[in-house]
Amino acid sequence: MLTNSQIKHILSLKQKKFRTEHQQFVVEGVKVVKELLSSPYKVDAVYALGEIADELAAVSSIVPTIITEMQLQKMSNLDTPNNVLALASIPQSFFNFLQVKDKLSLALDTISDPGNLGTIIRTAAWFGIDTIICSPNTTDAWNPKAVQATMGALFRTNVVYADFKKVVEEYNTANVPVYATTLDGTDIYKTTLSANGLIVIGSESHGVSPDLLALINKRLLIPSFSSGAAESLNAAVAAGIVCSEFRTRVK
Amino acid sequence: MLTNSQIKHILSLKQKKFRTEHQQFVVEGVKVVKELLSSPYKVDAVYALGEIADELAAVSSIVPTIITEMQLQKMSNLDTPNNVLALASIPQSFFNFLQVKDKLSLALDTISDPGNLGTIIRTAAWFGIDTIICSPNTTDAWNPKAVQATMGALFRTNVVYADFKKVVEEYNTANVPVYATTLDGTDIYKTTLSANGLIVIGSESHGVSPDLLALINKRLLIPSFSSGAAESLNAAVAAGIVCSEFRTRVK
Repeated sequence: MLTNSQIKHILSLKQKKFRTEHQQFVVEGVKVVKELLSSPYKVDAVYALGEIADELAAVSSIVPTIITEMQLQKMSNLDTPNNVLALASIPQSFFNFLQVKDKLSLALDTISDPGNLGTIIRTAAWFGIDTIICSPNTTDAWNPKAVQATMGALFRTNVVYADFKKVVEEYNTANVPVYATTLDGTDIYKTTLSANGLIVIGSESHGVSPDLLALINKRLLIPSFSSGAAESLNAAVAAGIVCSEFRTRVK
Repeated sequence: MLTNSQIKHILSLKQKKFRTEHQQFVVEGVKVVKELLSSPYKVDAVYALGEIADELAAVSSIVPTIITEMQLQKMSNLDTPNNVLALASIPQSFFNFLQVKDKLSLALDTISDPGNLGTIIRTAAWFGIDTIICSPNTTDAWNPKAVQATMGALFRTNVVYADFKKVVEEYNTANVPVYATTLDGTDIYKTTLSANGLIVIGSESHGVSPDLLALINKRLLIPSFSSGAAESLNAAVAAGIVCSEFRTRVK
């Protein structure tokens, strides 16, 4: 049975403060919860409508607590709650250069919209990029909106919050390329790109921060095909195009 | 002075029913309202905080009605209202094959998320695609969330709602290529693409609808670079990658 204190706990996790304190977060909806249940993540509780219990039992041995629609509505972060809500532990993760130096990884500098962050993680997973390094001021990947936007990709990638300067310096010392997208970069469509390295995606409104950019010498530009000057790209769409080019334009 | 009936009218436009009835919609924030003011759109009223009036006067002769922060808060659709809100007329627009046959255009089949729709319009504008044809069941482009997500690109593109079957039949009759992204398509990265034609983007969850797909013979696949099978792409990210490939992989 679901208790009032459990409901209160679930609701508290909408706030980063309590997610950090309890090292837990909330996942919702049949598709995404199924992804969670079949992932290495530690699942602490599953709350589900009775009609979905069998479907969940097929993918996991965790016995869900059966709840009512009204209880789900009360706890949900979604406009249209979708049958199930789970409580999971935030995994411990650290940046380890040796684990990523031969692969392509993504670094997100000051991404502030949770939907954009989640969509970028989803996009990275599609392109086989399994490590996403976030600057400390990037929004929280375990924010409910970010979690939902990953569509489960969060559970199959390593999302690490780390000091970017130290990260970039490790790449530079080892001579592994670091790329940033900037307005003064070389045309990405005409550049040969490396199969490994780090791609830095800048914030929605200000791009890559200047003090970080000073450490990066490979700068790429996604050129616009519009005759007007006012156009811009959403950060997640830009990340998708960059990942796509890296996977198809390797040397 | 702002009257209560004006506030009520502005608030009513959150609903499609009233947008359709009055053929008006709401635009918010300094950047996007400025784009509106310098576009061919008919602007019916501008409501702004006093401190922003001079900045708006520099781009338009429309005299804003000065409002208080509390009034802005009351009318706003944004979590953080941003200085100004404008009321504009929805332009009349019709599909005209002769105007688009030599260009590249986008068709959106059943896109249901306003943020995705707005982001796709923004992306199309970036790639110099100025006509976006929406299926009648695609969400409303004049929905506040969609408008904001276009970042002003809405005012520089032609967004048309039209019967897709008739549209595709016109392309087919004139032998102008129509493409759809599907799971059984040819690898987009290995396909030569035409400089003009129509690209159909399917819904977030179900792709291009089967009855429409039956009329389309050019099918493209964005292949995943992940070893897992669970990955998917956000509709706006997929649209961005497709547009990018069309602009760089022309025959």
